Amino acid sequence: MKLRHIALALCAVATTATTATTYAQQAPKPEDQIRYRQSIMNVIGRQFGMLAGMAKGEVPYNKEAAVKAAGLVETLSTLPAPLFGPGLDKGAPTKAGAKIWTEPDKFKAALEKMQGEVKKLPAAASDPATLKVAAGDVGKTCKGCHDDYREKEFRN
Amino acid sequence: MKLRHIALALCAVATTATTATTYAQQAPKPEDQIRYRQSIMNVIGRQFGMLAGMAKGEVPYNKEAAVKAAGLVETLSTLPAPLFGPGLDKGAPTKAGAKIWTEPDKFKAALEKMQGEVKKLPAAASDPATLKVAAGDVGKTCKGCHDDYREKEFRN
Repeated sequence: MKLRHIALALCAVATTATTATTYAQQAPKPEDQIRYRQSIMNVIGRQFGMLAGMAKGEVPYNKEAAVKAAGLVETLSTLPAPLFGPGLDKGAPTKAGAKIWTEPDKFKAALEKMQGEVKKLPAAASDPATLKVAAGDVGKTCKGCHDDYREKEFRN
Repeated sequence: MKLRHIALALCAVATTATTATTYAQQAPKPEDQIRYRQSIMNVIGRQFGMLAGMAKGEVPYNKEAAVKAAGLVETLSTLPAPLFGPGLDKGAPTKAGAKIWTEPDKFKAALEKMQGEVKKLPAAASDPATLKVAAGDVGKTCKGCHDDYREKEFRN
């Protein structure tokens, strides 16, 4: 527990540094970009986790919340691509696989496959049956990309 | 540098734990909620930072990017309120001021003031002159809330 507390404290320090850098409009450092990438993935994970829960019947379905989360996931899904760009393979500990940078075209295709499925989420979210199908399809692209491009352990 | 690297590694460990927890649809732990709160604020900071940069002329104005960022900031601005709820004052290092939990009504009013200004951003973002005014108004609510409710140092 203590270690996690220390980790989160330092994590917050990193966040503050990121914000300060951004406001000054300096070029963000790789470690700040990696932290931003992780923040985006965290929010996507939480929001899509809720949608997947609704799709599986583990969370009560709520149309308004589902449509809002789906729209948010769709917008957020468009952000990480440049954060996997050149020079962002190193600079902070990451589980992002080295293959992302050695086979960028394949990785880009995997990201675009995810984005293609995520685009269907907002319309699908307004009905539990269509959400179930769409969330399943999105989930498969998440897993596919994680299997191929996310390492089990942190590197760097 | 090394310390930040360790921090970010541990930070990523915390993120992974959060995602796993969410997918299992268990009640998230306070430390995971605090981490989620920090991720949301990080993304808001980066996206609003870009808008503020455009408003100040430090970043080239781009209508499509501005409207997208404004919509994203608006949606994200609706998420943190419950993450400042009961029991989330402790559990991980945070700069969130203790006053948030001792004067929740005042804090709620400050959050709602921010949300009220942020709501104007999407429409304002489609023109540099209106964006300048709206971003300025949003920035004041950010600063006001940070001055009153964000501590200088991490506590726990």
